[in-house]
Amino acid sequence: MLRSKWIDKNLKFKNRSQLHLARQGIITEEMKYVAKREGLHPEFVRREVEAGRMIIPANINHLHLEPMCIGINSKVKVNANIGNSGLASDIPTEIEKAKVAIKYGADTIMDLSTGEAINETRKRIIETSTVPVGTVPIYQALKEAKGDVKNMTVDLILDVIEEQAKDGVSYMTIHAGVLREFLPLVQHRVMGIVSRGGAIMAQWMLEHGKQNPLYEHFDKICEIFKKYDVAFSLGDGLRPGAIADASDEAQFAELRVLGELTERAWRHDVQVMVEGPGHVPMDQIEMNMKKQQEICKEAPFYVLGPLVIDVAPGYDHIASAIGAAMAGWYGASMLCYVTPKEHLGLPNVEDVKQGVIAYKIAAHAADVAKNWPGARDWDLEMSKARYAFDWNKQFELAIDPETAREYHDETLPQEGYKTAKFCSMCGPEFCSYKISQKVQENFESVMEKDNWIAP
Amino acid sequence: MLRSKWIDKNLKFKNRSQLHLARQGIITEEMKYVAKREGLHPEFVRREVEAGRMIIPANINHLHLEPMCIGINSKVKVNANIGNSGLASDIPTEIEKAKVAIKYGADTIMDLSTGEAINETRKRIIETSTVPVGTVPIYQALKEAKGDVKNMTVDLILDVIEEQAKDGVSYMTIHAGVLREFLPLVQHRVMGIVSRGGAIMAQWMLEHGKQNPLYEHFDKICEIFKKYDVAFSLGDGLRPGAIADASDEAQFAELRVLGELTERAWRHDVQVMVEGPGHVPMDQIEMNMKKQQEICKEAPFYVLGPLVIDVAPGYDHIASAIGAAMAGWYGASMLCYVTPKEHLGLPNVEDVKQGVIAYKIAAHAADVAKNWPGARDWDLEMSKARYAFDWNKQFELAIDPETAREYHDETLPQEGYKTAKFCSMCGPEFCSYKISQKVQENFESVMEKDNWIAP
Repeated sequence: MLRSKWIDKNLKFKNRSQLHLARQGIITEEMKYVAKREGLHPEFVRREVEAGRMIIPANINHLHLEPMCIGINSKVKVNANIGNSGLASDIPTEIEKAKVAIKYGADTIMDLSTGEAINETRKRIIETSTVPVGTVPIYQALKEAKGDVKNMTVDLILDVIEEQAKDGVSYMTIHAGVLREFLPLVQHRVMGIVSRGGAIMAQWMLEHGKQNPLYEHFDKICEIFKKYDVAFSLGDGLRPGAIADASDEAQFAELRVLGELTERAWRHDVQVMVEGPGHVPMDQIEMNMKKQQEICKEAPFYVLGPLVIDVAPGYDHIASAIGAAMAGWYGASMLCYVTPKEHLGLPNVEDVKQGVIAYKIAAHAADVAKNWPGARDWDLEMSKARYAFDWNKQFELAIDPETAREYHDETLPQEGYKTAKFCSMCGPEFCSYKISQKVQENFESVMEKDNWIAP
Repeated sequence: MLRSKWIDKNLKFKNRSQLHLARQGIITEEMKYVAKREGLHPEFVRREVEAGRMIIPANINHLHLEPMCIGINSKVKVNANIGNSGLASDIPTEIEKAKVAIKYGADTIMDLSTGEAINETRKRIIETSTVPVGTVPIYQALKEAKGDVKNMTVDLILDVIEEQAKDGVSYMTIHAGVLREFLPLVQHRVMGIVSRGGAIMAQWMLEHGKQNPLYEHFDKICEIFKKYDVAFSLGDGLRPGAIADASDEAQFAELRVLGELTERAWRHDVQVMVEGPGHVPMDQIEMNMKKQQEICKEAPFYVLGPLVIDVAPGYDHIASAIGAAMAGWYGASMLCYVTPKEHLGLPNVEDVKQGVIAYKIAAHAADVAKNWPGARDWDLEMSKARYAFDWNKQFELAIDPETAREYHDETLPQEGYKTAKFCSMCGPEFCSYKISQKVQENFESVMEKDNWIAP
């Protein structure tokens, strides 16, 4: 793969992070590749990375990676969470999920395995993946501590982080913002702490009677991250898990710490993005995005949904795509998908597909609303194909070509209908495009003879 | 049914519309029923109807109707379009669609049949339905004119309207705003006229060389509507069919006429709502809603989606639920659903279900964002059931209980798991709620002995 030829250049530096290189004035091959993908100037990409407004999560050991960027001045990205649990899935299924997620356009994937064979699963997912892979190392640490936070020492945590970094993980969720002094703030909540990492760190602090070790040893994590170019994904361990808990003091107290940690990572020349909620009603989304931009100095915001209501289990990909589209419009850089299984069970391959597609819709809707250069061209092409009754072109341009074709053919299966100037919705007599085209054809002549008056 | 006892009161008046009765200072039984459903004071409902800000579409001949309201000061409503086409479906299928739509919470349904047996289909749908039924009479008129606008006389149109009104149709889409002088404005569009009614009226005007007959004879339609209390749904025949065409002069020229017609209908004491787009990128939705509110003096806005992108055929229920939720938040009173089959074919029963559910999510998200009194209670109850691991309660509270239960049981089918304090997503070891609850249980004692400092 192409990246193996590039990587020697990065290895000359002790700090291999794209941020460090950007600050040396270097336009890396990764930056050039990203610039091409995004339609940006390579020097613009370098400056964005230098400013911390953009990250290129590209572990030096993930050699078949096709570099991509996450940032406020680029297209809105989508992440798909996969991984097994103690109760479901296996490696072949997870590989299948990774493939399906990438096929439908996931820009990154996270392996959130908490079940068996965590190491092997991660390695196989990275092998399979051409997109950056993220993890939450605290899950493996807890697993290796036999499920008891008492056994989870600082050294164990750091060892797991280094091991995962060596394997080629490009970003890691680090729940360093859940501070001891914030725990009183969640006691009144309807849903307490719903982040697994957040809950684990809270339990750790209670059991050990100490401050959050990820916060205390943040600089050591930075040292590991530099060697491999792992980016921080600063976890929001206190994100709201119900709209009733949204935008409360616990959430924002943690966000302020994440802002502080963003700058601490930057002082190490380590790349960083910040994670965000969760469950947020529509009227609070813009405020949440602006607040993060201000507190975290425009470091990329990576939000989970948010779900705008709590009552749609089975359809939370839809309930959260609404929030995600708005979040992207208001400046979130990456949208972590939610699948139809959210709140009900571990997603299967079909759920992964449905989640990714809902989020590609949300991300593109955000690009369109932001008037991102070129974003509307795709829609324009589709609209032209639609008005021209070019069915095959429409299927090609669709986010999910197979499904579009299948739905069309369900009621008009015959080959001739692929060129028909109607579909089964209206039939030939009532097709508005057809009538409209007839009107347009006759319009000029009628207008002339009829002395038609334009308004 | 209860309404048969009420209706005599309305029949004493020549103009049976709720608006006329409201203006006499009468709080009708329909208003009382609506007040109870909405948690509003009956006099408040009367005043809203009087002001034209709320309609109660309740044809005097739809006796088993359970009256509902559409208006800016009530919960956001959802409409489901059903009906056959020349190429697909039959009466039993349409009845099934009506039942499914009502089961999943459609507040009104529209019979948009353009195929065979239009009269019989409509009658059967009204018989089946406890929610108001809307139609687009011009479809039947064109059908009776043997598909040729040349045969579609003004008398034929008015006869069809009267016939449908007699049958118990509670609101009709009347495309009276597509004026002759606006046709030059659509010539440059990417997608011309995508409203079937709009395209038919445009063709009519070209063929007959005359102004839109629905505009010209608007007062005659008002006379029919008064007798049965049919509400206008002023059709947006020039709505954009692509985001490239959104918010253009054609769209707003028509909207200004709809504003004028709103006041004309009000002068007749006839109820009216206004239809809106269509395809609108997120950044233009708020502006579109405010413009309608201003131009149409807060008459209820009934929008189709809007779709926020054009490239998701097969998933347009999602692409449009994003726009619909925002539209509802910014003041649209009713959201016309879009199904996964949009742009591809006639929706089947499953598509109707998927469309209604996506739109119940959008409508509820809008109520939540508007902080409509009580709207968030539903979510609060769900969140409490979630945190209490009360799975059966969660299923009961879900928008689609069967699907929620089925998805949960897919990976944890055993009966014991219905009370388990985890699901297959995380398993017992990694369940954040469980860990969080443990933290909360231990918190007080630890806090005391540890001299915990609150921030």
